[in-house]
Amino acid sequence: MTRLRVHNFAMSLDGFAAGPDQSTEAPLGIGGERLHDWIFETRTGREMIGENGGENGVDDDFVAAGFEGLGAWIMGRNMFGPIRDEWGDEDWRGWWGDEPPYHTDVFVLTHHARAPVEMEGGTTFVFVTDGIETALAQATAAAAGADIRLGGGTETVQQYLRAGLVDELHVPVVPVLLGAGERLFDDVHLLDAFTDVEVVGSGRVSHMRFTR
Amino acid sequence: MTRLRVHNFAMSLDGFAAGPDQSTEAPLGIGGERLHDWIFETRTGREMIGENGGENGVDDDFVAAGFEGLGAWIMGRNMFGPIRDEWGDEDWRGWWGDEPPYHTDVFVLTHHARAPVEMEGGTTFVFVTDGIETALAQATAAAAGADIRLGGGTETVQQYLRAGLVDELHVPVVPVLLGAGERLFDDVHLLDAFTDVEVVGSGRVSHMRFTR
Repeated sequence: MTRLRVHNFAMSLDGFAAGPDQSTEAPLGIGGERLHDWIFETRTGREMIGENGGENGVDDDFVAAGFEGLGAWIMGRNMFGPIRDEWGDEDWRGWWGDEPPYHTDVFVLTHHARAPVEMEGGTTFVFVTDGIETALAQATAAAAGADIRLGGGTETVQQYLRAGLVDELHVPVVPVLLGAGERLFDDVHLLDAFTDVEVVGSGRVSHMRFTR
Repeated sequence: MTRLRVHNFAMSLDGFAAGPDQSTEAPLGIGGERLHDWIFETRTGREMIGENGGENGVDDDFVAAGFEGLGAWIMGRNMFGPIRDEWGDEDWRGWWGDEPPYHTDVFVLTHHARAPVEMEGGTTFVFVTDGIETALAQATAAAAGADIRLGGGTETVQQYLRAGLVDELHVPVVPVLLGAGERLFDDVHLLDAFTDVEVVGSGRVSHMRFTR
């Protein structure tokens, strides 16, 4: 059974998954990068940015688990790039260079049609214009029995949570306050749908993992 | 040095320290009692309500630590009771029966003067009408070198946090959503004032303890 999984979707102690005033320079909003500092202390996090070192342990286990058993990704357009409205000259091919770290089909939710973009290393960006359920159906077909990881941004995760389509939700709660930004759980009242909750503190962050 | 400490001030994953529509029947608001369920699984929590049993372990350690080394308490009027405006016939002597679990002077913040109320077991409720700094000064004198515990409600804790007067803040984050209520960290931007953060997960809740 293919499962739809959210991993390492970090939230500040005051509930924000991104800071205010997102921009090309601050894709996670002002202060939002503090939500991810802990990731780059882990071995897997360092590997993601082409560096050695980093720690093993609880945090690394959670970061690494987010990449296991995946056959497809789904993400919102704002995670794919900063362009709004029409695609324009279609030069934008994501934040991640020629070889993005996905190595699967990546279904990008957008209101604006665009031909698929094939990248190096097995990643193909496929643009889906008719909603989250279509994206999930296409991703499920592409995953061929493996799981689907749901990336950001906040609004995309909220849409799938509200529709009751998320099978696993891992939220690391980071002990910082952002004061403003995008609240992960605004108008999301479905957490009771998850039957299991795991709570593990690492010293740096608190991992909350909901499954059903 | 007397320190002002907040303990076991539980918050839902969506940031609420109390649910909506507080009343005499639901002093923590609708659903708010779910923030405290974990306490009554601990040995110390069971003792608080006169029962045996309960678990040792991380959660119990945190609950028990909240009662150690105290020489005084401070709380808001809403934690003392449901009466608003004037005290009326002054029959109300708190939620806790003849022998409240404080065993120290308890300074109650209120806009309405009232004579001190001496209870059994060493608890005396002292009503303070001229603000949080006066209450802290009086509590510091009463504590005679021991620490002061700051109880609720949310607004009282926020006032002391905004004034930079809290030395230790322990927030157990509970993996439930309340959807509405009192947000602990609304307009509180002072968490960076704390120099140390401890993050411990117990399986049930995530303990975040800020100190300086």
